Amino acid sequence: MSEQWLEQIKWNADGLVPAIAQDHQTGRVLMVAWMNAEALSLTVQENRAIYFSRSRQKLWRKGEESGHVQQLHDIRLDCDDDVILLSVEQLGGIACHTGRENCFYKTLKEGEWVAVEPVLKDPKTIYEK
Amino acid sequence: MSEQWLEQIKWNADGLVPAIAQDHQTGRVLMVAWMNAEALSLTVQENRAIYFSRSRQKLWRKGEESGHVQQLHDIRLDCDDDVILLSVEQLGGIACHTGRENCFYKTLKEGEWVAVEPVLKDPKTIYEK
Repeated sequence: MSEQWLEQIKWNADGLVPAIAQDHQTGRVLMVAWMNAEALSLTVQENRAIYFSRSRQKLWRKGEESGHVQQLHDIRLDCDDDVILLSVEQLGGIACHTGRENCFYKTLKEGEWVAVEPVLKDPKTIYEK
Repeated sequence: MSEQWLEQIKWNADGLVPAIAQDHQTGRVLMVAWMNAEALSLTVQENRAIYFSRSRQKLWRKGEESGHVQQLHDIRLDCDDDVILLSVEQLGGIACHTGRENCFYKTLKEGEWVAVEPVLKDPKTIYEK
């Protein structure tokens, strides 16, 4: 496979771009993570979201521990070629490590960030056996 | 006003965080830009999206030239405190400088990025008088 589509992307100084995962049905923004070229290439090959963990400095196959895999429906690139938008099916209905549907659960109310989305599952039961 | 809500945010080494603008009605992801603390503070104060332009290194009041202002409906922060999600009303129905509704108009088809969203307005008529 030609890698021209990968070369078109304007990776940052660390070789990464932000990737937004959006629920393909509800349109909800689930999370944002980062991808390097390998992660993006594998995402397309395996038809599931694979990120690059900046904290662990390695590939992160979303759902590898939790089972909360993100199956790929569509992949978009923005006008500046430096942000990826994934349309996904979120298996298990939980994208966030806090056990919530999505990571954007805090809203600004009267000068404070307030959690307004419910925890659907105790994170301990997601990541521990 | 207390600035504690601003201090909670984990700005990157350049003092920025990515901000996603999402249409408050359709859920469409319109664009991603960057904010510094001043941009975010002004966004809340003025109830419209104000970004920080990395290329111009100054505040960018979205719509200041085009009239395509993004009126703020809700503002969210993610679990890692390093990504902002704006729910907005996109005046003029065009977020992208290419004259399209949104910036994510390229999809990956058979190993190539292909534009699949229509140009609604000639960019020349948006930015020139």
